Amino acid sequence: MESEMPKEIVLDGIAASPGVAHGLAFVILQKELEIPVYEIPAKQLEHEKERFEKALLEARRQIAQIRHEIAERLGENEARIFDAHIMVLEDRALIEETLREMEDTAYNVEYCFREVSNRFIEAFESLQDDYLKERVKDIEDVSRRVLQILLGQTQRNLMELVSERIIVSEDITPSEAAGFDKKKVLGVLTDSGSRTSHAVIMARSMGVPAVVGLHNASEQLNNEDYILIDGYDGIVIINPTEETLFRYGELKSERQTIQRVFESSALLPATTADGHRLEIGANIGGPEDCERAIERGAEGVGLYRTESLYMQHDSFPDEEEQYAAYREVAETLAPHPVILRTLDLGGDKHLSDYFVQNESNPFMGFRAIRFCLEHRELFKDQLRAILRASAVGNVKIMYPMISTQDELVAANLLLEEAKNECRERNQKFDEKIEVGAMIEIPGAAYTCDLLAEHCQFFSIGTNDLIQYLLAVDRVNDRIAHLYEPNHPAVIRTLNTIISTANKHNIHVGVCGEMAGDPIYVPLLFGLGANEISATGTVLPEIKYLIRKMKLSDAQALAKRVLKESDPYAIKLLLTRFYEAQMSDVLEPID
Amino acid sequence: MESEMPKEIVLDGIAASPGVAHGLAFVILQKELEIPVYEIPAKQLEHEKERFEKALLEARRQIAQIRHEIAERLGENEARIFDAHIMVLEDRALIEETLREMEDTAYNVEYCFREVSNRFIEAFESLQDDYLKERVKDIEDVSRRVLQILLGQTQRNLMELVSERIIVSEDITPSEAAGFDKKKVLGVLTDSGSRTSHAVIMARSMGVPAVVGLHNASEQLNNEDYILIDGYDGIVIINPTEETLFRYGELKSERQTIQRVFESSALLPATTADGHRLEIGANIGGPEDCERAIERGAEGVGLYRTESLYMQHDSFPDEEEQYAAYREVAETLAPHPVILRTLDLGGDKHLSDYFVQNESNPFMGFRAIRFCLEHRELFKDQLRAILRASAVGNVKIMYPMISTQDELVAANLLLEEAKNECRERNQKFDEKIEVGAMIEIPGAAYTCDLLAEHCQFFSIGTNDLIQYLLAVDRVNDRIAHLYEPNHPAVIRTLNTIISTANKHNIHVGVCGEMAGDPIYVPLLFGLGANEISATGTVLPEIKYLIRKMKLSDAQALAKRVLKESDPYAIKLLLTRFYEAQMSDVLEPID
Repeated sequence: MESEMPKEIVLDGIAASPGVAHGLAFVILQKELEIPVYEIPAKQLEHEKERFEKALLEARRQIAQIRHEIAERLGENEARIFDAHIMVLEDRALIEETLREMEDTAYNVEYCFREVSNRFIEAFESLQDDYLKERVKDIEDVSRRVLQILLGQTQRNLMELVSERIIVSEDITPSEAAGFDKKKVLGVLTDSGSRTSHAVIMARSMGVPAVVGLHNASEQLNNEDYILIDGYDGIVIINPTEETLFRYGELKSERQTIQRVFESSALLPATTADGHRLEIGANIGGPEDCERAIERGAEGVGLYRTESLYMQHDSFPDEEEQYAAYREVAETLAPHPVILRTLDLGGDKHLSDYFVQNESNPFMGFRAIRFCLEHRELFKDQLRAILRASAVGNVKIMYPMISTQDELVAANLLLEEAKNECRERNQKFDEKIEVGAMIEIPGAAYTCDLLAEHCQFFSIGTNDLIQYLLAVDRVNDRIAHLYEPNHPAVIRTLNTIISTANKHNIHVGVCGEMAGDPIYVPLLFGLGANEISATGTVLPEIKYLIRKMKLSDAQALAKRVLKESDPYAIKLLLTRFYEAQMSDVLEPID
Repeated sequence: MESEMPKEIVLDGIAASPGVAHGLAFVILQKELEIPVYEIPAKQLEHEKERFEKALLEARRQIAQIRHEIAERLGENEARIFDAHIMVLEDRALIEETLREMEDTAYNVEYCFREVSNRFIEAFESLQDDYLKERVKDIEDVSRRVLQILLGQTQRNLMELVSERIIVSEDITPSEAAGFDKKKVLGVLTDSGSRTSHAVIMARSMGVPAVVGLHNASEQLNNEDYILIDGYDGIVIINPTEETLFRYGELKSERQTIQRVFESSALLPATTADGHRLEIGANIGGPEDCERAIERGAEGVGLYRTESLYMQHDSFPDEEEQYAAYREVAETLAPHPVILRTLDLGGDKHLSDYFVQNESNPFMGFRAIRFCLEHRELFKDQLRAILRASAVGNVKIMYPMISTQDELVAANLLLEEAKNECRERNQKFDEKIEVGAMIEIPGAAYTCDLLAEHCQFFSIGTNDLIQYLLAVDRVNDRIAHLYEPNHPAVIRTLNTIISTANKHNIHVGVCGEMAGDPIYVPLLFGLGANEISATGTVLPEIKYLIRKMKLSDAQALAKRVLKESDPYAIKLLLTRFYEAQMSDVLEPID
């Protein structure tokens, strides 16, 4: 006789957004649209074309509205997905082919548009190119939207959810993800999708736990199923027992308790137990991030990613627009320092107008300072905007992707030109404004003694540095396991940069993801870094850790780590050190 | 009154293949094919489809034949272009769309095929992706061939040339370049095309001078024009004066004289003026390269690129095929050493079956040892083939793209398995076969002390090493200027690797392009390299240089270079040193 109790089933996926949630599943299976086909009399062809135009306009309106809502709710980064959708809508080839198809076949517009967009999708799919695969998803999403408008149907809308549910789907399109009613969505599971898919970025921004890469979960699960989703460890439990639920309940409340401990002391200074005050900055994307960063204990901005402002525009923002944003940040943070990184476009950050040409290896391509030195007027617009903001705050300039002394010298010469232009216009700026170089290319790391002659500070961008050091594109799932911050080459290179900077009396900060992972913080300060800068959310924990640790212990730790040759041993040393410092908050967990 | 003498006009282009030639221009302007359009009665549709099938088969036959001829004449590398053409012919989407178009429109096959291929070309072009641009050229070339077959026209054939000419063209398709009658073609000029275009690779392989990037030269020039082409400096002179012709005549004969001096002493040992015998190997692609390499003075093979054999097949060659090739090389070279690099696919070297997924940054992707460690049986097939070849010669194994100790250990474990499998089969091999790691990733360079524990030799791959060190994709024209072998970070990194190897008693060779450029040879040996390996053609010059120089001077040079911080200063030091050693042969030029 079979047990009547449903059996607990554990599925292993990929943790994509942290948090724990449990509730009933809401399984979404994407239904094929039924497209009618009929002939259009010649005299009605114009009317049919008008229907098409109206549908395109309506689709554009809908996308623009979603884009606006997402930008408001989640920020510009997430909203950018819909720029790609608008680009599809504006694709002349797609539109003209459809019109031609209508003329040639005399069939209705729904049918012709579906035929043409499928043709595009097939052509792109047959190429099996990662870049195009993403485009295929965009075309599918937009095409579905246009067809639904033509058919008078509404988008399947997750707003319809009557009760709180965990969404289970093959994959979630950006449009769908945008439609989430945050109050009703407890978590997200998808069959496909990597940690960098649209759905995941959305879930993470909304603070909803997500697990992806569950293969055929959407077929396995039914709407009636009760599930638990653990976004910390990438686990999904179908029919969790009471014991499981209790265990996870404890875990969740402990994590929340700990986070409250961290946050309650976020505004205390980052002074170590042996009395060294360390510098803690925030990474921000614009003025809108300042308030939260300060609340979370930031004592300056170590990395202001200025490209966010550029990404919001179809064209480059002019000097005045930039000045307004930079000035706001400088004033809000004053007297704390704000390090503005000049335009870092290219690589995986594109701006349609200027990066028409796709590159075979964009990460090793025409980006950042390489781009700016060839678009001098654009670059000087930004430099003048930064200079003018320096009149009202403690502003510093940082160039990304420096690989040679020549680039640094060339950038500084343009800065001098920008200064002269400000002087001619009687615009004030900080005459002693400091200039720094991002150290994120191995060649720069191993010649930073030479770069030290041309700037006042370094900031280590660990993400790119690790990528180039290990020749691993970390966005590439096939080899992501080789992206290893604990590789001894990474530790040695950090040591080379930091000790060289110390020797040359150059201020050195770290602003990559390693700086935002608390286990690396003691190592970085132990090696001699002057500052770390990270996303606001993690700053309370980092400051708590710093107040618990002694700098002398961190220095001893760094010495031990430098002697290790095994990434696992390095990670273990770092984790143990972290746990020892944090024992007072961590112990209740065990 | 105007002079009757035609004026000498100098055009600056890009040197693409060395040599000097002069003669009459043969200007090729690609004419549009005239495609008839007519309706096909329904009952003849099947016949029309048959015509299409036959044309595809004939196109395939033609391409296969060209491929065969090119492989014979120029080698497998050049022939690979035509594999891409065959892939276009086999593109199901292209074929099925054409058949559908014929059914839908009832038009003739020429018209339908042209429509469909144009649609594909437009779709790809609208994406403005470099990878796709190359595909567009392939589709255009193949589509033209199929249409000409359908129309009963022959390909425009350069065999028709009645006298020796310099070919001038907008661009040359691989098919056209393949049709060159080498005896009749003096040189090649193209408007477009980079140094890596199909046309250039062909010209270089044929030893014909080429200048590319001449913008509108094909419009400027007429068939009557007398031109001189300087493939050393990328210069084209229209209506050269007698003085110009005389000057170039001297230059050409001097270069030939010098090359004869080098070649006449190619078989002498590479012993420096102060009595140190240095190791000089050749880089080869297969058994077919051995004879020429030995004639040119190679005393071993420092880099056997085993992927050439893989590239020749639609599928992977089996162990026996590999064994036959490796054995032939090992026997031919014995007792000299042969270093076989295990499969280095991925990056820019693809094999259709196994690399279906294109990557965003293939150079930092799933390639070389990363691929082999996930395709263990395939890898062990190769290892056993190498092991068995080691029974009849001095064979060594080298793993490409090593970035961690783990990879090296994992590869060695598989090698042990392969050895056991050979033992079980009673197949002999060199029990003391040496294993080496390519050092071409910065992270490996700066942890090569750790790698030294797991292998017997290193070989430095400078091409990739420089790419990753400077984060420059050297195939990317926009930033190719940043690819700088004289960057102090490159020199320092070479020094780190070589001095670490010396300290750990690890044999260290250099097999990248720096080893094949004579100006770097004194530096590499001066830093302490034990061996350099380069393409056969340059070995006579390198050996000549070594016999002229003192190792002690090279060591002093290396010390001076290490102190320099400016790439230009480094290059100057190296060039001056080279010129000083070679003064006896170089002086007559000035």
